[in-house]
Amino acid sequence: MSETPAGSAEIVGGFQFVDVPTSQVDQWEADSVPVADAARRLNEALIRSRAEGEELRSIAKELEGLVERLEATAHAGPAGVRYNAEGRSWEWGNAAVGLRNVVAPPMTTEFTSTESVRGEAVLGAAYEGPPGMVHGGVSALLLDQVMGKTASRHHTQFTFTGTLTMKYLQPLPLGPVEVLGRIDRQEGRKVFVVASIGTPGSVAVSAEGIFIKPAWAEADAAAAAVNAD
Amino acid sequence: MSETPAGSAEIVGGFQFVDVPTSQVDQWEADSVPVADAARRLNEALIRSRAEGEELRSIAKELEGLVERLEATAHAGPAGVRYNAEGRSWEWGNAAVGLRNVVAPPMTTEFTSTESVRGEAVLGAAYEGPPGMVHGGVSALLLDQVMGKTASRHHTQFTFTGTLTMKYLQPLPLGPVEVLGRIDRQEGRKVFVVASIGTPGSVAVSAEGIFIKPAWAEADAAAAAVNAD
Repeated sequence: MSETPAGSAEIVGGFQFVDVPTSQVDQWEADSVPVADAARRLNEALIRSRAEGEELRSIAKELEGLVERLEATAHAGPAGVRYNAEGRSWEWGNAAVGLRNVVAPPMTTEFTSTESVRGEAVLGAAYEGPPGMVHGGVSALLLDQVMGKTASRHHTQFTFTGTLTMKYLQPLPLGPVEVLGRIDRQEGRKVFVVASIGTPGSVAVSAEGIFIKPAWAEADAAAAAVNAD
Repeated sequence: MSETPAGSAEIVGGFQFVDVPTSQVDQWEADSVPVADAARRLNEALIRSRAEGEELRSIAKELEGLVERLEATAHAGPAGVRYNAEGRSWEWGNAAVGLRNVVAPPMTTEFTSTESVRGEAVLGAAYEGPPGMVHGGVSALLLDQVMGKTASRHHTQFTFTGTLTMKYLQPLPLGPVEVLGRIDRQEGRKVFVVASIGTPGSVAVSAEGIFIKPAWAEADAAAAAVNAD
């Protein structure tokens, strides 16, 4: 991943412009799928394994070897959000949607209109809270991600989370989940979003959020240029 | 991990009694630390690595081999919450505190009184939301975990999350974080908890929650027997 051509400074984290075509980003992401999938399956197997002392130590050693190989070409610091000249952006370290991040299921999201978003994920053993159920905080994580995306009004405005309120209506079993968000209204720099997580036809957690457009984010045209996903 | 002595049925997930002494559980947990640490470092290295096609495929293959080894002795289904006769419990699959779960930082928590809890975690690149900052939903996850533990009034009552409200006061940079929770009041089966996440002396997100003791959870004595952590 030649992100730092000779002579150009590397910005760690932040919103970073990377001068590569979208086809290259797509290729990087396609290449990431097998290894990220394997890492997620490793996590699930680790949670459920009955392996003990000696076997665990041996596996830890093998993992250390793989860590070294990945570190050999790693950039310092978190992934940040990167984008190219075509407006394609990618945030592989994002805790909810980061392709390469075992913390993320990952959830995939799409705009169903300029004011609504649909997300879906399959939540396995790694997302457990009460036995066999999705952790209430994981529901909050996915809701926050979808609501933030929704508040962007199809990437035409930049916002921060102001307030989130979640009502836990019924337990959500581990497995496939659907997250829906829509803009309820906007009052100046405040965007009111409503959302839910559950399975099709059944809401487990309903949410309301107020997202704030910071005073400096006047440049809507600039935001529109960053067209994620 | 000989959790299923000959003749005993294995309950997948759920609250499962396992007849082993606390010293054995402590040993299992100590044995888990190196491999879980390595798995977390693998995740961070994967997020930040510039390795491409061939190298990623090779690493994926090695990971698959490790998945097979862990699967060979894995029990089916999620980890659930397990406990022994001494009241020691463990939930390795928990998304916030699960020792063996890469999704969890993990956060460590302790009761600072029967009505208050303090948690801490170090949030690396895998917990990113806005560039260089903790994902708002990750704050929610850790707050929910601490608030739920707080509502248990030092494990003397069992509750579910009813409602959570979070106010995002300022961005929270990746790094060490502190989560504080305390019971504000209790009205019948409703427990009102307040909490915050930030760094010592600086609150990034403040939260209020209502936790509900289900009607069937009358057996406070039974709950008191399950003394987690």
